[in-house]
Amino acid sequence: MLIPVIMSGGAGTRLWPVSRKAHPKPFMRLADGQTLAASTIRRALAVGDAPVTLTVTGRDYYFLTRDEYQAVDSSADHRFLLEPEGRNTAPAIAAAALWAEQLYGPDTRLLIMPADHLIRDLDAFSEAVAHAEALAADGWLTCLGVTPTHAETGYGYIRSGQGIGEHGREIRAFVEKPDQDTARRYFESGEYLWNAGMFCFRADAILAALETHAGDILEQVRATWAETDAEAAPVELDAERFARVRPDSIDFAVMEKAERRAVVPVDCGWSDIGSWQAISDLYETDALGNRVQGEAVLVDTRNTFVQGEKRLVAAVGVDNLVIVDTGDAVLVATRDRAQEVKAVVEELTRNNDELAVFHRTVHRPWGNFTVLEDAEDCKVKRLVVKPGGILSLQRHQHRSEHWTVVAGEAKVRVGDEERIYGANETVEIPVGSLHRLENPGDEDVHIIEVQTGSYFGEDDIERLEDVYGRT
Amino acid sequence: MLIPVIMSGGAGTRLWPVSRKAHPKPFMRLADGQTLAASTIRRALAVGDAPVTLTVTGRDYYFLTRDEYQAVDSSADHRFLLEPEGRNTAPAIAAAALWAEQLYGPDTRLLIMPADHLIRDLDAFSEAVAHAEALAADGWLTCLGVTPTHAETGYGYIRSGQGIGEHGREIRAFVEKPDQDTARRYFESGEYLWNAGMFCFRADAILAALETHAGDILEQVRATWAETDAEAAPVELDAERFARVRPDSIDFAVMEKAERRAVVPVDCGWSDIGSWQAISDLYETDALGNRVQGEAVLVDTRNTFVQGEKRLVAAVGVDNLVIVDTGDAVLVATRDRAQEVKAVVEELTRNNDELAVFHRTVHRPWGNFTVLEDAEDCKVKRLVVKPGGILSLQRHQHRSEHWTVVAGEAKVRVGDEERIYGANETVEIPVGSLHRLENPGDEDVHIIEVQTGSYFGEDDIERLEDVYGRT
Repeated sequence: MLIPVIMSGGAGTRLWPVSRKAHPKPFMRLADGQTLAASTIRRALAVGDAPVTLTVTGRDYYFLTRDEYQAVDSSADHRFLLEPEGRNTAPAIAAAALWAEQLYGPDTRLLIMPADHLIRDLDAFSEAVAHAEALAADGWLTCLGVTPTHAETGYGYIRSGQGIGEHGREIRAFVEKPDQDTARRYFESGEYLWNAGMFCFRADAILAALETHAGDILEQVRATWAETDAEAAPVELDAERFARVRPDSIDFAVMEKAERRAVVPVDCGWSDIGSWQAISDLYETDALGNRVQGEAVLVDTRNTFVQGEKRLVAAVGVDNLVIVDTGDAVLVATRDRAQEVKAVVEELTRNNDELAVFHRTVHRPWGNFTVLEDAEDCKVKRLVVKPGGILSLQRHQHRSEHWTVVAGEAKVRVGDEERIYGANETVEIPVGSLHRLENPGDEDVHIIEVQTGSYFGEDDIERLEDVYGRT
Repeated sequence: MLIPVIMSGGAGTRLWPVSRKAHPKPFMRLADGQTLAASTIRRALAVGDAPVTLTVTGRDYYFLTRDEYQAVDSSADHRFLLEPEGRNTAPAIAAAALWAEQLYGPDTRLLIMPADHLIRDLDAFSEAVAHAEALAADGWLTCLGVTPTHAETGYGYIRSGQGIGEHGREIRAFVEKPDQDTARRYFESGEYLWNAGMFCFRADAILAALETHAGDILEQVRATWAETDAEAAPVELDAERFARVRPDSIDFAVMEKAERRAVVPVDCGWSDIGSWQAISDLYETDALGNRVQGEAVLVDTRNTFVQGEKRLVAAVGVDNLVIVDTGDAVLVATRDRAQEVKAVVEELTRNNDELAVFHRTVHRPWGNFTVLEDAEDCKVKRLVVKPGGILSLQRHQHRSEHWTVVAGEAKVRVGDEERIYGANETVEIPVGSLHRLENPGDEDVHIIEVQTGSYFGEDDIERLEDVYGRT
């Protein structure tokens, strides 16, 4: 049995301002209108033959990820292992292996897949997975190694050796990101493959290798697992124990040292979508080398990528730029240095600037809200409540709220009164009143909320009951 | 008697996206927080010795201009001549001269001043005006010619001749914008001055010169004047007659041909603020040559000008750019080609795109509104009503409105009911209901308006009464 295990961790700071901590790269929509999370689960469902998929992620991303998956296939059984904090891939994979061993037996094959990569050729990928699984079944710790298309300096490489059967090769070494000359030599040799973080192994094989090469990590993860309720949905790794686990990558902790390592070369239109340049490469250029998503007016502009949202982007006489516009921030970078945007995120983080973390649209388990106005005298939001979504029973000390329903039918409790409100109806929620908003229907509820008062922070919410466990 | 006559016409398309047709260059706020309109009226009040100022402008700009002037000096008597459409400067000056002749006598001196230029040295300007007025009193058609600071190819030049008295010179010729070599020669000669559109002459002298050199223009403006109520406030030029006036500049129609032309050189820190490059020159640079207005994070960025509003601008690895961000559009241009932004405005105009004309904030005689959300299911605005401001008595066929007062005290009529609403109160205005909003207090009223319904266009307003004559 092959269980796809999706690793969904990093924040993708090189794709700011679209990717932010609260809404990172897996949830970005690409040219095809799909999020990477949706593409990844679709790929997982295509190659797995187990009754479940497993995703290892943080608690903050659980509801968002689940919603993405359900939109792809609501009947599939998506399981989650939630990390209280990220400890890199070795502990995450160790936990996934313990989970699989306990629920499905030691010879379960795990296919480790990053959540935020792009694979254009699903057939080629599926075929490589089948070969990797065959090797994994035989006890090999197997990588999928991406056949290089150019002399890239931004990735680590896997040096392959002699063949194992028809489709695999032994791994001679894992090597770090090379300089330009070395990358060219790797590319021309035909021996080297890109390390894309995709692995396939039996649960017992990876646990045995962890035991040998990173015994302390496995020991602490086992201790965590012993305190974790494996039957819960989602499974939440015990925070106190997991905090003691040494963070390390599976590459460094195990793969670089282990025996019986195999690699299956795969040429599947892979991209790690690691920068705005990589994103722009997904689009066709016009005659002047420009690529535009959104509304733009370009005057004598060349080799420039524009990604807009609602606003117009105008460019005059520029060349070789990346311009990315969002509701609250705009990035202008030269194309070949676009990945240095992570320095912007670092500065914002140092300044505790929320632009490093949140968008104007903030996702919640019940739906989302978008801030339309944030001023001294009021705050205005659009609330979107999903079918079945229920906000916490709450009250505020410093603000009144005025809700106007603009779409759907909302069930609203204010004080002890509860009734249904439809489009064009308003609800008043005085300071200090208990209230709760719920969508009992089967279409989204949209509400414009006008907050008046003296303070509008998200911390002025006293939650008395919450179906999502946020009290 | 010297009457300052402010000519306020053009749209300033080279300063888009901040300057737009409905809110053009005179209303832009510069580095000092002042609008050019406010700086110009302050300058006018400093040099004029008449009981009034006169501004020739379009009807659309009347209320905005008056508000700017009143904020500078509410006790001054600001008169307005409103053009039904722009016909260039010769007809506007002819009308101003007829107005001055009729109200203050033929020997009134007029000081013609563009509304949208910057003058840093008011003392030098005032001194030059005094010299120009002395020549004008003696019958000379006088220009203020700006002493060039560099070999500029973007302006017309005035070639000066022999001295007239201590401070003036005869004008030998008006010459067109030169090429680079010619500009250098002009600059080095010391004979040439920039033509900045500033003139001083007696009403009877300019009318006589118009009679001689542009008799048809004067005849049609006289015919317009005969049909215009000169005692009205503001004076509105008769539209039917004024439409027949041939458009021409005062330079071409009169100054290039007339006799007894004088120029007074002036070195007053003048700028026509004709491009984003000119605006950026108003700011100090940091060590890397960058200038920033608003919030920005710059990573290895040089010689770049950033003007933002509420949003963050991030730049990575760029050089020599102008980045101007507004609520609904962002401009990225190379510094030396920033004035080509007019090509963007032309394209927007061809596409009937409102971004060529309006901002998210739209000014009205009673105050302004800002669009916070414009979607299929609702439109949300912040309304700001000035003290004494009264919206028209109106109704809508396709939308209901839900108002929440967030600041000030509003007098609201809905149907036949009228009462005062304070902060935190809401008012419901059903589809088809007559309603009117008024600010009877002495602080601004702020209201968040949520429109619900099927259509939210500005043309769904049926005005039954309007104190500003808009029914």
